[in-house]
Formats: sequence, structure tokens, C-alpha cells
Amino acid sequence: MAMQANNLKIAYIGGGSRIWAWNLMADLAQAEDMSGKVYLYDIDFQAAKNNEIIGNNIQKEKWEYKAVETIGEALTDADFVVISILPGTFDEMEHDVHLPEEYGIYQSVGDSVGPGGIIRSLRCVPMMEDIGYAIKDYCPDAWVLNYTNPMTLCVDALYHAFPKIKAYGCCHEVYEVKDILRKALKDILDIDTKSRDDIKIQLTGINHFTWITEARYKDIDIYPVYKKFAEKYYETGYNFKHENNHLNNCWRQLELVKFDLFMKYGYIAAAGDRHLAEFCPGDWYLSDPQSVLDWGFALTPVSWRKDYLKERIEKSGRLVRGEEEFDLSPTGEEGVKQMRAILGLEDLITNVNIPNRGQITNLPMGAVVETNSIFSANSVTPVVAGDIPKSIYPLISRESGNQQLLMEAIAERSLDKAFLAFVNDPLVRLSREKAREMFDRMVAATSEYLTMYK
Amino acid sequence: MAMQANNLKIAYIGGGSRIWAWNLMADLAQAEDMSGKVYLYDIDFQAAKNNEIIGNNIQKEKWEYKAVETIGEALTDADFVVISILPGTFDEMEHDVHLPEEYGIYQSVGDSVGPGGIIRSLRCVPMMEDIGYAIKDYCPDAWVLNYTNPMTLCVDALYHAFPKIKAYGCCHEVYEVKDILRKALKDILDIDTKSRDDIKIQLTGINHFTWITEARYKDIDIYPVYKKFAEKYYETGYNFKHENNHLNNCWRQLELVKFDLFMKYGYIAAAGDRHLAEFCPGDWYLSDPQSVLDWGFALTPVSWRKDYLKERIEKSGRLVRGEEEFDLSPTGEEGVKQMRAILGLEDLITNVNIPNRGQITNLPMGAVVETNSIFSANSVTPVVAGDIPKSIYPLISRESGNQQLLMEAIAERSLDKAFLAFVNDPLVRLSREKAREMFDRMVAATSEYLTMYK
Amino acid sequence: MAMQANNLKIAYIGGGSRIWAWNLMADLAQAEDMSGKVYLYDIDFQAAKNNEIIGNNIQKEKWEYKAVETIGEALTDADFVVISILPGTFDEMEHDVHLPEEYGIYQSVGDSVGPGGIIRSLRCVPMMEDIGYAIKDYCPDAWVLNYTNPMTLCVDALYHAFPKIKAYGCCHEVYEVKDILRKALKDILDIDTKSRDDIKIQLTGINHFTWITEARYKDIDIYPVYKKFAEKYYETGYNFKHENNHLNNCWRQLELVKFDLFMKYGYIAAAGDRHLAEFCPGDWYLSDPQSVLDWGFALTPVSWRKDYLKERIEKSGRLVRGEEEFDLSPTGEEGVKQMRAILGLEDLITNVNIPNRGQITNLPMGAVVETNSIFSANSVTPVVAGDIPKSIYPLISRESGNQQLLMEAIAERSLDKAFLAFVNDPLVRLSREKAREMFDRMVAATSEYLTMYK
Amino acid sequence: MAMQANNLKIAYIGGGSRIWAWNLMADLAQAEDMSGKVYLYDIDFQAAKNNEIIGNNIQKEKWEYKAVETIGEALTDADFVVISILPGTFDEMEHDVHLPEEYGIYQSVGDSVGPGGIIRSLRCVPMMEDIGYAIKDYCPDAWVLNYTNPMTLCVDALYHAFPKIKAYGCCHEVYEVKDILRKALKDILDIDTKSRDDIKIQLTGINHFTWITEARYKDIDIYPVYKKFAEKYYETGYNFKHENNHLNNCWRQLELVKFDLFMKYGYIAAAGDRHLAEFCPGDWYLSDPQSVLDWGFALTPVSWRKDYLKERIEKSGRLVRGEEEFDLSPTGEEGVKQMRAILGLEDLITNVNIPNRGQITNLPMGAVVETNSIFSANSVTPVVAGDIPKSIYPLISRESGNQQLLMEAIAERSLDKAFLAFVNDPLVRLSREKAREMFDRMVAATSEYLTMYK
Repeated sequence: MAMQANNLKIAYIGGGSRIWAWNLMADLAQAEDMSGKVYLYDIDFQAAKNNEIIGNNIQKEKWEYKAVETIGEALTDADFVVISILPGTFDEMEHDVHLPEEYGIYQSVGDSVGPGGIIRSLRCVPMMEDIGYAIKDYCPDAWVLNYTNPMTLCVDALYHAFPKIKAYGCCHEVYEVKDILRKALKDILDIDTKSRDDIKIQLTGINHFTWITEARYKDIDIYPVYKKFAEKYYETGYNFKHENNHLNNCWRQLELVKFDLFMKYGYIAAAGDRHLAEFCPGDWYLSDPQSVLDWGFALTPVSWRKDYLKERIEKSGRLVRGEEEFDLSPTGEEGVKQMRAILGLEDLITNVNIPNRGQITNLPMGAVVETNSIFSANSVTPVVAGDIPKSIYPLISRESGNQQLLMEAIAERSLDKAFLAFVNDPLVRLSREKAREMFDRMVAATSEYLTMYK
Repeated sequence: MAMQANNLKIAYIGGGSRIWAWNLMADLAQAEDMSGKVYLYDIDFQAAKNNEIIGNNIQKEKWEYKAVETIGEALTDADFVVISILPGTFDEMEHDVHLPEEYGIYQSVGDSVGPGGIIRSLRCVPMMEDIGYAIKDYCPDAWVLNYTNPMTLCVDALYHAFPKIKAYGCCHEVYEVKDILRKALKDILDIDTKSRDDIKIQLTGINHFTWITEARYKDIDIYPVYKKFAEKYYETGYNFKHENNHLNNCWRQLELVKFDLFMKYGYIAAAGDRHLAEFCPGDWYLSDPQSVLDWGFALTPVSWRKDYLKERIEKSGRLVRGEEEFDLSPTGEEGVKQMRAILGLEDLITNVNIPNRGQITNLPMGAVVETNSIFSANSVTPVVAGDIPKSIYPLISRESGNQQLLMEAIAERSLDKAFLAFVNDPLVRLSREKAREMFDRMVAATSEYLTMYK
Repeated sequence: MAMQANNLKIAYIGGGSRIWAWNLMADLAQAEDMSGKVYLYDIDFQAAKNNEIIGNNIQKEKWEYKAVETIGEALTDADFVVISILPGTFDEMEHDVHLPEEYGIYQSVGDSVGPGGIIRSLRCVPMMEDIGYAIKDYCPDAWVLNYTNPMTLCVDALYHAFPKIKAYGCCHEVYEVKDILRKALKDILDIDTKSRDDIKIQLTGINHFTWITEARYKDIDIYPVYKKFAEKYYETGYNFKHENNHLNNCWRQLELVKFDLFMKYGYIAAAGDRHLAEFCPGDWYLSDPQSVLDWGFALTPVSWRKDYLKERIEKSGRLVRGEEEFDLSPTGEEGVKQMRAILGLEDLITNVNIPNRGQITNLPMGAVVETNSIFSANSVTPVVAGDIPKSIYPLISRESGNQQLLMEAIAERSLDKAFLAFVNDPLVRLSREKAREMFDRMVAATSEYLTMYK
Repeated sequence: MAMQANNLKIAYIGGGSRIWAWNLMADLAQAEDMSGKVYLYDIDFQAAKNNEIIGNNIQKEKWEYKAVETIGEALTDADFVVISILPGTFDEMEHDVHLPEEYGIYQSVGDSVGPGGIIRSLRCVPMMEDIGYAIKDYCPDAWVLNYTNPMTLCVDALYHAFPKIKAYGCCHEVYEVKDILRKALKDILDIDTKSRDDIKIQLTGINHFTWITEARYKDIDIYPVYKKFAEKYYETGYNFKHENNHLNNCWRQLELVKFDLFMKYGYIAAAGDRHLAEFCPGDWYLSDPQSVLDWGFALTPVSWRKDYLKERIEKSGRLVRGEEEFDLSPTGEEGVKQMRAILGLEDLITNVNIPNRGQITNLPMGAVVETNSIFSANSVTPVVAGDIPKSIYPLISRESGNQQLLMEAIAERSLDKAFLAFVNDPLVRLSREKAREMFDRMVAATSEYLTMYK
């Protein structure tokens, strides 16, 4: 690899993105020891073009942005590939998330598991496979960061298309739980911590259903601290993130799911409650909208996403026209830190989604899992997380197995096999006739994107 | 081991049994190259005493039966230990099976998984642990055959109590599916087979949820044959076992669950439909009594078991008093064949439940699984079954993980942890409050047997 | 697979063979429930042609033999492929075995390991790869039995060329050790056994260096018996096989190596002493010709093989001309029994060489190992042998690793890498300069067959 | 664990040490955010007492040193335990190293493998077991750093005595090879590096025979650099460490062994040449003193160690009497950095010796191996190193297996079994009679320490 920290080529697939791409721009601007070009590819070329303008307004001498019309142009000789795509539009997502409500099934996110996550996978995995084939052709040595959900299936699809790909999936949910642990330290022990990097954890599981099995701040075991914290706020919840803002209704999260899982399973779940709830058994948190309210979180409606997209498009216009200044403050995302580590500029230990090659000893080899890894010069090496504890193993193993089945079904382009994964999903608590009816309706609603299936 | 094929000592724990013990008597009587003593231990000493009389009526010069009042007397220097106990009485089982009906949960058997299987495990595992400890003390070199359900938990409990125990669990469900395959060969290809030993299979899974992944008769692949068979009888069912007898209502089985699983998952499920249905997702076969009827099987009420027990007790009386002759025809069970193989008198390849030590490569080491094993001189050696196929892996892995969690909960005597397994069971499709209420009521109903729990 | 027990096609690669092919003819003639055609392919077409005549003289109506001029003709639609080839001629083998004597290195066989085995591998593996490729093209569903040495490398080469091949390696050394155990039972306990099938064993290791970790006859543990036997004959040796015949000088074997290994390592080595000695450390048995004599075995000179070949050629002539009758007595080989089991006509448990897919838990997956397997309808399934015992693990692991390295070297056609395996061989106790000189001379001596190497 | 970075208790077993203990004193003095007490235990109490005085002269207010007469006093409630003991005296070591010379066997170090390493293990492992038992009793939660050789056996002994021990072995050989890589970068590419922490490596193997499978400086792949470096100095050697000092004769090292191994095996060996040579096959580097000289390294005679010990004792006296100032410059050892990381004060990625729990996928679980690990708050977590490359696997697997066998032999206190490991050692190229004679003589020479053996 002729990778140069000062002459890098980054390919951004989904380069018209108005969240992740802007985050990357902000963080690249901070990275003093890196420079190069960022090629933006998007099926919405105009969106990529706008991002080209926005990006070049920042510091063109250091990072040059360029919208391109073919994926090949973006990928050729890239050192890094960043993938954040929307598989379909929010119209498709609307069906994914809300059609099941007609069957009494509520989804807080609907992009990872559950009926929505599965139908989204049907659309998304073939796209990711195509990206994987293109990477094999144009830049087989590049490092590939995926942000797209469903994370597990997307990473699996990349490796399925190109087994030697150097890809990993990157998710910030764990970081936010580290921040909760900092709050707990402050709240219970009145300890101020400088950054979430001070919180040292052992991690195991699958994306959006990861678990922290040990947590320390210096010589302090955070587990007993978190126990007190969970007990203290078990009734009221802990309003950690969105104190008084307008998101409350759609993104609110009082950590009650997390506390409840801790009380039951004895381990700290490491994702947002909206995600965690979708992996849980027996209709615990998502049986109906009132339950969701009682558990202190929210069902995020796709209408909110559509509204928010409009806002972002308007903001994009303002940025392009220079009517608004680009916000350069650090985003809290780790993509650029990971690139720096891969470039050998520092070491980084963080959570990552890659196929199991020994890191989790009681899940099958090859299953995409999320554990800590060391990012170092040209390497992302998982640490040995060992066995998932018995109390949470059935939940994780069940879902991991279902994801592997879904991947096999999609690889074979078999909707009948995909239905086996669908009906086995924890949120799908229907008779098989009802389940099949819902599945068929959901497939029909997104059929435009599923022409490759039998 | 100073084991002599002609001077054997067999200890029978649950020696008052009126089914399994009589089966053993019949099969031992056929085994020409074996002789010895059978010690019968039962908490109902009189039942054991009756079996002593019944057994000694058969061929006392070859096999002498002796009821004993302590487990130590039974076990001391035993070469084989047979365990078939009823954990509690049918009154307890009545709660296990029928109390969940108040919550809309129907169980066809209720002794392996489901709410009934889990509560039964709470009673049974401590008993099996005690038997394990006693074997460690009195006959650590003995081979131990367990027939008791829940099979997986019982075997796990024995190894938990005494890791070096030479124990395995023995279940006839797979044999019966071999007979179905013979019927299919006859029905579809008009081929007569001599015995089920002619049917060669590859097997994987967990007890009562085992799957045949390959099946051959001589050079004939049975899979396409079974496919035609399943298709032919998919509407009507195939009345294989109990054509016109009075059991119909309680034990009827038209193989429709088996055919349906085959159509969906592409593999032959190898247990009775009443068992299989309890492991299946999304309320497929057990959503209500009418569904069960439509799927051609039956909910076996515990009242039937109570009535049948009365019949057996009466029969026992007649046998003791010499008013009825003991039926010596072969039972189709394999326990005695297994003993012969362990004694080095022949080799036997058959299905067996033992901890995973490599036979299934995508389930955790140590989980009790059911695969083929070779029974040979002083050895029961599992064959390498490899990975469970992806389409059935989530179903099996989920339940296997749940069983391991339940075992850990019971080993810790923690009802709260046991509830985690309970609420995670595929049949328990309740909100957590309802689930906990049902759990607590079921525990209360059998509390007499659960005094060791916190 | 449209395999018919009565219309089989067997392809024999090396079909001019005057030992193994004749054995097969004899055993096929006994197999009453099988019939078909045997296609003989050999680079010496005339030899194959002679065997065609010899074979057809036996029972042409049942088994028809046909010499063919291309491998494709032999393999097309074959149900079974038998491979027994000589890689090169005895002239090459003469260098393999005797050139090292100039460096003080003596080899009793020289066809598996040691300098001779390694150079033979350089010739043989590419040939086996070509056969593997041809099987992939002409009969990918065929079962493939290899008899050729070096067994481990040959089987590895077949799987390397065609990973889905249904191949296994078949070796009679273990059978003979079972016969020694029968002798021990007779000698020590005066027990008569009917056949070696009565001896039940657990087996682990690699070809020609397999070990019996448990052995039983009925309920008798043979280990203490063998201990007495080994102690009784530790001084004199036990003249088991070739009491007074002319082979004495070249094949003599008094089992002293076997007894000595048992005394030291506590396990029964399961191959002929001539093979075992070549795997052993520190110059134990092969330091010089006198040692070999003292240890009761023989260095088999290639001149003997040449003489014996002449005898066989003459015998072949007599058989072709009908001057001698073909000996139809059973050979003791198991190839035909294995075919019968694969055809579903019986089950067979026996030792076999296949890649490790879990059968040995402390050798790498994929390494070709020898353990028990079940031969059943269309399947050869290894049993779980678990960990190799610690005391013999270093010897086995060292050699297994060396074989894997050699395979990689040959796959890369790299003589320099092959030298790494060469110099690491237990028999090569030379300085590296001397070792390289010997290696280069040996390579030169067989260079005609090594044109594909760099 | 109530471990406080500012009130630590460190127990030093072998606390009279005049090298490692002084290194620790120097490094602890630099660690600004740590303080506490160091308890010194040594069978030579006076030596510990002297170190108490020396230590307390440095900065008693921060680190207080205290010599104690019992191991229990040292260990009670310790947070860290440091072990650096000499098993026996240099008189014993003299036999270990030099007696084999009578048999033509030369050892450059003689403390890890080879006849010397094995005999040293016989003495040392029982001592380490006793320390392990004491740790179990007095401070089961302490972290235990071992510096004692034979490293692999010592760590294995600790885990054998107390399976839940939090112990690891710590060796600086890898660090020094990182410094060689820095020299190569300077020499070949004229790149200045700041510290060895800039060199990022992937590591695998066993102690003193570890291998760097990837090496990077920033975005530069060091492998091609090292190749040029090795080629450049392949004839002359590279005098990296001891340019012109008096150690030349006993410690000289021109890296020729390392270069030669790289040329042959394609991987960078990561230990000093004196160690590497002792693991190598076929008498490559240690066949006689002239060879050693030609290969640019030295046989370190024990007489040198004795002389050097005298110097250190004299120096100790001067330090005690205040006639010489204690040298506080950083030692380059990592023990204190590791403690800081375990205290949660920073993360550290470095090489460490611990039992295999998945980090090396083609060595047995439980074998003590050396790979990278993350040191973080209260954890030492190995990274997944995957399979050892095939070309070096036989060398490593052979020796690792031999070490496991030796450990089993010592655990059973069986000299006969230990001899099996002895005769299998790569350096022992003798007939078995000669080998046994040498073994028996070496055992006799150190018999005073081996009274626990059968």
C-alpha cells in the first residue's frame, strides 16, 4: 500500500450525505497530520456536488473534495473508503417501520433488526455486495469504514462479496454509553472525568446489542457505581442527553431500558435504549406505544426523519451559498481517529464490527460481532473477548444466528428463506399466517428495490 | 473397571417405574450374553419391591432383581446406572402443563422446554445433582444412562455434579423418525426395509429438537424420497403410529409439523411433532387448541397420564400376583444394546445426549447436544457433526443457550435468573409482568420441591 | 450420485499395480452384493493391459476390467477412484533411501518422512494434484481411496487441488497392530479372539505415527495386558509376522521399537516398527545399521524392492498366460469393505486419513490426520478423538506441522521452503551446510521429475 | 480490589535481586502518579535488607521499601507481586550450561530450553508452584509479574498452582528487536524515530522464540526495509548493542542469526540471537564454539555471571553505605508502565506471556504463549494473533508441545517423563543412551533441589 498520510485519497460512497459526510469534513479539518483528496460518489450526484462545494469551502489547500459520477472514479486507488448510504428512500423506510404497526408491532428505530431491519436488509445487502465487488476491482488494499445500517448485515455483505476486504463497521452507540458511565461516576462518587477515553471497558456482542462486561475508571470498578446509579434512577429515569429540546418526542431516552436490563441480566447494555428494546424478548419494552412511553424512550417516526431531511437540505443550500458557516467543532465520531491509527500515527483501542475470527469464543467463526479492537499501523486486530456470559448469550446468539441466516437467504436471493429469519425475529410475535401476510406486504411495498430476488 | 458381562450390577434409580423399568426387564431377558443383578431404588419403595417380584418372575437364574432402601446400596460398585425418575408427581406436572393455559399458552408435552419444562427443571436438576454426587461416591466408574426429562438439563446436572461421570442421555424419538423414513421408502418407492438400522443418518441438534441432515438407505438418498412423501401427505397427514386406538385424542400425530418444518427449513426434524412444536417460533403450531388439531397432533393432558398411571398400577398388581404374564417382546428401546456395546460385545452407532466436546462446531463447548456417537468397549465417542446448518441454527442455538442459562440459574439456585430463561422461551409470548406473574404462580404451585432456591 | 451397488464404475489410477490392484481384484471377487466395471489407468499401459487380462480371468460376468489410455476415460462418471501409484521409479527411490546413508542417515522405509519421504513428496504431490484436478473435472461426486505414500501429503494434495473432493487415505498398519494385541491377549491371558474386529480401539495421530489411546476386547482392558506382553518380550522381541521366511533380512520386525515407545510414552504406537522409527527423536532407533539390528527391525533396501518387482512381473506374465492361478483368498485390506459401507450395505468403523475438521482438538484444522471414522451410506465421518495426550503431542505436532509446511512449499513450488521442512526433519541431524548439500544432491538425483519447481 | 494508585502494596519475591529489583526502584521513582510500599522477600534475607536500605535512600516519602522474613508478610493484601528469583545458585547453573559441553552440546544461555533450560525447569517450577499457592492464600486478587526464566514454564507453574491467578510473564527481548527495526529505518531510509513505541508490530510465538509477522512505522511497511537491512549486513553483521565494551566476548551479538532466520523463514524473529539459536533445528548455529563465533554471537559462560555477581554485590555494598549514587535513569523495562496501565492510568499494548485462550489459533488452548496484549484498567487482554504462519509453525509447535509435556512431567514429579521432553529437545542430538546418561548426570548435579521427584 502506497498510502501517504499527506497525500491520501478517501472515497466516500454516499457522498451526498448531509450528516455523516459533514461529520467527516469537520473531523478531517482537525487532523493536522493528514491531507489529501476526498472523492464523493452518490446516486444523487447533485447532493455530492453540493458537498464538494461545502467541503472545499473549509480548507481546500488541505482537503480537496470532488464529486464524481462513477463509483470507479471514486474508488480507484483509494486509501480509505467510507460508506454511508441510505438503502432506498424514507418512503421505503416508512413502510419498514410503520406497516408492522397495523399488526401491533412497534419499532423504535427499525433499521437493524425487527421486521423493518430485515426488509431494509433485503434492499441494502445487494447494494453493499456491489460496493464490495467494486472495491475488489478498484482498490483491494483500501481500508473500508462502514456507517450504514443494518451494520451487521452490511459488514457481512462486504466480506461476502470480497473475503479479503479490509472492512469494518463503526458505530458510536458504545461511546455514548461511556458518557453515561461518566455521568454515573459524577452522580454517585462526584468524580469528574476528562473524557470518555478514561473509561476502560471490556466489550462483547453484536451491533446495537453490545454489552460492557467490565468497566473501570483508573482503579475504580464502575460496576458497583453503575448499580447504585441504576437503582437511584430506576423510577424516574436519567435524562442524560436531550434535556429540553424539541427532539424529546422522537428521541427521548431516560435509560430505563438500560437500567432494567442491568437489574435483570447483571451486565451493562451498551447501546441506546431505542436500539436495545428491539432485541429484547417477550415484548418487554415495545408491546405498545404506552409501554414505550413508560419505559422512557420514543418511537422515532419516519415522518420526523423526513422533516429533518428537509431541514438538512435547506441547511445544505445555505452552506453552499455561503449563507451559513460550517461548524468545525469535533463531532465525537471516531472515523478520523481510526484512519490516523491505521496510518500508524497513534494506537487506538475501540469497538468495531468485523467477522469473528476468535474474539468471541461461543459464537460461530465468521459471524459479524462487535468487540474491542486495536487500531494500529495498517491493522485492525480484535482482542480476545472470550465467552459471552451465559445470561445474555441466548439473546445474542439467537439474533446473531438469525442475522447469519438472513445473510444466507439474501446471498441466495431467497425470500422464502428470508421469511424464516423474519418469523424468528423477537419482535414478530404473530401466527405464521399473519407473519407471512405482513412479510409479503412489506416486500411488496419495497418491491422496486427487490427485483433480484426469486 | 472390573465389569463382567456375566456378573453385572445394574442400579436402577427410579426402580419403581412401571414403563421404563419393565422395558429394561424385557430387553435384558433377550440379552443372551449378559447376566447379573439389578438393584431397584425408588423413593416409593413399595413400587420398587413390586418390580423386584415382577422381575424375579421372569428368569431369576439370569437376572436377579432386588429392591433396596438406600441409593448407596443400589449404586455401590454398580457397572451401569439407569435413571428414570419422575421429578415430583403428576399433580406438579398438572400445574406445569395446564396453568399456562390460563395465559393462552398451550403445551403438547410440557416436560422439556416451555414454561412447563422450565419449572420441571427447577425441581429435577437438584435431584439429578444429588444422584450425580452419589455416583461420584459409590460408583465413579459406572456408565450412567438417563431416560429422565428434561433430558438436556438432566444430563447437564449429572456432569455439573461430577464432571468425570460417564453419563449419557438416551431418547427414542430419533428411532421413530427412522421408522417414518422407512414408511416413506415403502410409500414412495415401494421399497421394503428390514429394520430401522438400515436407515443411515447424520444427526445434529439438541434433545427433542434434533435434525437429520442426511439420510440414506443403501445407495438411495432418502431426502428426495421424503420430499415427495411430505408433499403427498402435506394436506392429509400420515397416520403412522396410532391408527385407531384410544390414544388418538392424547397422542395423535399426523406428522404435519414435521412435514411443515421440512418444507420451510429444508431439513428433516427428528422428534415427535408434540415435542417439535414446543421449540418452534412465532406461535406456529401451538397458538390454540384448534391449531393443534389442525396440525394433526394433540395436547396430552396430564389427566390422561394420571389415568394411565392407574392402569399401570393395576397391571403391576396383576403381574405381582401372577395374574398376568409379563410381555417379553422386544421394546424397541436401545438401552440394553448400548450396554452390550459398552461391554465390548458389538459396536453400535446411535444418537446420544452428552456435553459438546467438538461434535457440533457452532455451539459452545460443554453444551449438552444430541448427535450420533459410537458405542464401543467402555466408550461412547461422539462423531464430528460439524456446523448446524444456518437455517436451523438460530432456533437451536437460542434454545441451547437458554438451557445453559437455566442450568446456571439452577446451579446458583436463583429463581430470578431462572426467570430470564423463562421469559426468553419461545412459547412464553407475554409481557414481562404477565410472564413474571405466571412464573411466580407456577413456582408457588410446586414450591414444596423448590425449598433450596433463594 | 447415481451410484448402484450392482453397476458400479471403479477407476483405478495406477492400474498396472501388481500388489494393490491384485488385492482389490481378490477382495472384489468376494463382495457378493457388488458388481460393475473397473477401469485401469496407468502410465505403463501394458501393465494395465496385463491386469485387464488377469482381472477378466477371474469372474468377468461380475467384474469387468478394462485398461484405458487416458485418465479421463477412467474417471468419467466413476463411483469410486482408487489411487496407488509409484511416484517415479525404484531408481528414484534408491536415491531417496540410500543417498542419505553417505551422510550417516539410515531409513528403514523412506517413503513417508525423513529425507526420502520429503524428496518423494516433491515428486508425488504434483502428480496427486493433477489427479485431484482430473477428479474435479470428470467425477466430482466419486469417493476416492488413496493408498499411495507419502499418505498425509497425498491426501493433502487431493484436497488442495479440489477442496470438495470426497477423498480419504487408507492404511493397513493399524490393522496389524490390532493383530499384535490379539497375540498379546493369547500370550498373556490365553484368550482366543476371532478377528481383529473384536479389538476396539481409540486412535489418534498421523499416518505411520498413529497411537492407540484405549484398547478393549469385550470387557477386558488390553492396556495392562499389553504392558505385561511388552515387558515379557522386551529383551527378546516378539517374532510376530515373518517367522522363518526369506524376508527376514529386509522386513524383520520384533516389535522392540513398539515396546520401547510404550515403556517411555505410556501409549501403544500403531504402525510397523520400520515406520515408527523414522518419526522418533534423537537418533533412537536409526543411528546406524547395528542399532537397527539391535532394535529388531530392518532397513529395507530398494534393491530388494527391485528384485521383488521382477518376481511380480514374472508372476504377472504367468497369470496373463494362465500358467498360474490367481489367489482369491481375502487380503485383509479394507478397501472393498469401505466401499460396501459407503454404498450403505453395512456400517464400518475404521482408521482413515482425512483433513482435521474437529476430530483432533490440539492439531490445526485442515491438517491431515489419522483417527477412527464411521463409514456409512455416502459418508465418512470422523469421530471426536479430542486432545492428543501431552507426552506424545510434541512428536506428532512437530511432524504434522512439518508436513503442512512441506505441502505449502510444494504448492508454491519452492525448493527453498521445502528445504526448511527437510532440515527440520527428525532424521536430518546435520549442520545446515551438510543438510543443504544432501538436499541439493537428492533433488538433482530426481530432477527429471521436479521440472515444475523454481 | 481496593487498589489505590497512591497507596499501593507491591510484593517483590526475590527481593534481594541486584538487577531487576534495582530496575524496578528506578522506574517506580519516575512514576509520578503512584506511591506506596514495596515488600522485599528473599531467601537471602540480608540481600533483601540491603535493597531495603538502597530503596529507602531514593525517595522514602513516596516509596517505602521493607525487607520481610516470610513470604506471607510480603504477599498479604499486595496489589502487585513481582517475581524474579534465581532457581538455585550459579553453581547449579554452571552444570546446566557447561556439563552438556562434554557431550558436544553448546548453549548460549541455557535458561529457557535446551538441556540447561529443562534441568533449570525441574528446579524452578516447584518453587513457582509454591509461590502460586501462597498468592492464592495471601493475595488472590493481586496482579503478578514474572521476570524469572524459564519464562514459559514459570508462568505455566503459577497458573497450575492457582488457575485464577492474574499473572503474566514479562520479557524485554521483543523491545530490543523494535530498536533494531528503528536502526534499520535509519540505516536504509535515513528515518529518525523517536522511540520504540512508534514501531507497531504484530507478534506471535513463545517466549524467546517470538516472531514479528508485521511491522510498521507510520505508513511505512518495515518488512521490505528490514529485508534490505538484513541483506546489507548479512556478511558483516550489525553491531547494534555492545560496540566496544568488555562484554563483547560473552554477550556479543551481530544479529546474524536473526538475519539468517529472516532469509530462510521470511519472518522477523524477535529475541536476542543467543536465545533464538537455542530453539533452532539441525545444529544450525550452535554446533560448536567456532560456529557460534562465525554466527556473530557468544556463549555466555556462567563464570562471567559469577564474576558479574561479585561486581553487583560490591556495588550493592557501596549503595548501602552511600558510597555510590543510585542511577535513576529509565531502564527501558516496562513493568511500571504495565502497573500504571493496570491501574487504569493509561492504556498499553505490549507483548506478554500468558496461557492461550484464543490468541493463537493453531496452538492448543492453555499453552503459555507470547503475543500482544492490551494492558488496561484491571485487565490484560490478549489480541487475536490468529494462526502462526506455516513456515515457522513446526519449530514453535514442537517446542511449545515439549514445554507442555515438561510441565506435565514436573506436575507429576516424574523424571522419566521429563526425560521424554529432554531427549526431544532440538539441542539434544544424542543417542538415547548418551542422552539418558547426560540427563542423569545433570539431575545428579542439582539433586539437592530435586528432592520432590520420584
